[in-house]
Amino acid sequence: MYINKAFELVKWTEGQTGMNPTVGCVIVKDDRIVGIGAHLTEGEAHAEVNAIHMAGTHAQGATLYCTLEPCSHHGKTPPCTEKIVAAGISKVVYAASDVTLSSGVSYMQSKGIEVEKVEDDAIAAFYAPFFTSKTSSLPYVTIKMATTIDGKTADDESISKWITNDKSRAHAHQVRYGMDAIMVGYNTYKKDTPTLDARLYKDKRIKKVIVTNGPFVLNTQDDNDYDRSRLIIVSAIDQHIDGITVIHVPRLSPEDILKALYNERIRNLLIEGGMQTIRTFIEAKCYNEIHHYIAPKLLGGTSKHQFLTTDTLSSMRDMTHFNLVSVNQFDDDVLLIYRKA
Amino acid sequence: MYINKAFELVKWTEGQTGMNPTVGCVIVKDDRIVGIGAHLTEGEAHAEVNAIHMAGTHAQGATLYCTLEPCSHHGKTPPCTEKIVAAGISKVVYAASDVTLSSGVSYMQSKGIEVEKVEDDAIAAFYAPFFTSKTSSLPYVTIKMATTIDGKTADDESISKWITNDKSRAHAHQVRYGMDAIMVGYNTYKKDTPTLDARLYKDKRIKKVIVTNGPFVLNTQDDNDYDRSRLIIVSAIDQHIDGITVIHVPRLSPEDILKALYNERIRNLLIEGGMQTIRTFIEAKCYNEIHHYIAPKLLGGTSKHQFLTTDTLSSMRDMTHFNLVSVNQFDDDVLLIYRKA
Repeated sequence: MYINKAFELVKWTEGQTGMNPTVGCVIVKDDRIVGIGAHLTEGEAHAEVNAIHMAGTHAQGATLYCTLEPCSHHGKTPPCTEKIVAAGISKVVYAASDVTLSSGVSYMQSKGIEVEKVEDDAIAAFYAPFFTSKTSSLPYVTIKMATTIDGKTADDESISKWITNDKSRAHAHQVRYGMDAIMVGYNTYKKDTPTLDARLYKDKRIKKVIVTNGPFVLNTQDDNDYDRSRLIIVSAIDQHIDGITVIHVPRLSPEDILKALYNERIRNLLIEGGMQTIRTFIEAKCYNEIHHYIAPKLLGGTSKHQFLTTDTLSSMRDMTHFNLVSVNQFDDDVLLIYRKA
Repeated sequence: MYINKAFELVKWTEGQTGMNPTVGCVIVKDDRIVGIGAHLTEGEAHAEVNAIHMAGTHAQGATLYCTLEPCSHHGKTPPCTEKIVAAGISKVVYAASDVTLSSGVSYMQSKGIEVEKVEDDAIAAFYAPFFTSKTSSLPYVTIKMATTIDGKTADDESISKWITNDKSRAHAHQVRYGMDAIMVGYNTYKKDTPTLDARLYKDKRIKKVIVTNGPFVLNTQDDNDYDRSRLIIVSAIDQHIDGITVIHVPRLSPEDILKALYNERIRNLLIEGGMQTIRTFIEAKCYNEIHHYIAPKLLGGTSKHQFLTTDTLSSMRDMTHFNLVSVNQFDDDVLLIYRKA
């Protein structure tokens, strides 16, 4: 129960801690909450430390609930485990193991603290992208598709607005909010001039990544300092644009693009289109998840805007297998979330 | 609670009452079940009558729960409402209204019986195909598709076994069991030699409908009296095959096919393939539901086995809209059931 409260704090602060994952912490003594903490800003205090400060002397003999295993390493801040020991916490309950840093569990146990790991699928799923990205030194890549029942992203006249319903689109904006960057191909940028923000959450300053083969020309909508600072142009040719980050990736191979974006501190990337960009990343198997929104409509017609045809012939022998992570229903729309198996 | 027990009986007997819907009935007196009935065989006693017989004198002053509104017409059996009145039932609770026959409600009320209609979505959904078919004098048509995430029914080498998992296929067999007939095109019949039965439920004798443009040649698997009696050949040419029902439908228009099958007492039809047959029925808008099984796999490749391309160009202006009836999960497979809006 308390671990769920800690996870609630994680959801409140998602997207505001840069390269760090968000973490929530609740300290409980005699069935009363005596401390609440979250990691709020990269480089500043961790969740456990904030909660211990709030608890003050009540931390003595209390139980600390934390969504992520407390760290024991000297990073931008001192190790949380030392603070936990110093505060006199008697028991630590956590959900997700930190697989990238030295474990704090054995240190705390050596100091007489009881440590318990609880299994929580939702919390494990929340941290999976973070650990995957950190382990691979590549962004965790989510591909978003919105199609009809028969997999069309647009009709044969290339009209695509609006296939999915309001609730689906609102959810898509929520998903954007958890991202460090949203990528589209240059054609999509010029044609749809997408804002690629999380609508109600503009303060997040999600980066807008545009992949281009040739010269980049800014859309007027992005012609101000705020929007220029959000843009990252991944370009096959070497070019300079005032006030805009341009990364030169000669052959635009998906893997090289991802490496370059990781160096730009992007660990959570959403690819929204167009189909050619998505096709390139899928063919190179450079992605982790697919978010497939399906609207209750049947278009038929040609396979011009079909998710998904590729240049190579398909074969059962080398198709990609997935795990179905979740099924969400938005009135008559469905969102299926798949993770590569 | 009792209405759910009555609905349980409906599910037990689904598929064994020919052109009639299955109906369940429970009679309750002083919180004890005093009668249980179901309609078991077309032309024989209705559920209410069976339950009243079982209740005997206990029916006096009891409450009768019935999934479908009791009939008041003289059909193959006398009206149930007269039996209900004669038995001394004091209250009738039912879920689905009978929109095709004269209502029994006013008659029962005139005899001093309290009548209550309860709203139950599952029961309403169960009877929808029956009433739709009866009103239109056409079979209720369900199209079944099993595809990858990207809508492929087979790879570019035309290999399709097995896209979906065991649980999905077991469910598909359950769905078959509720059908009067399963239809495939002649090419699919020759190539896959599908058994088109409900596997564990062979006694159901579901009809096997094969649509053909030219001469029909029996697969050896069907070369016995039992299987011949299950076959209905819908043929564009006039032909005779020993022991097999052949319907001559000159241009094979989907609507004419459906009319002919309704005359063959088929009110619940499942179309399983191949893609050309499905395409023809979808283009003619001659169907009611789509059952879309989605396996967690991505094939890519060409649109050769794509659900769904058609010969006419697609346009947002005349696409078909659906209601999402249900979302079912079978491990990593999903089944989305859509009904035309």
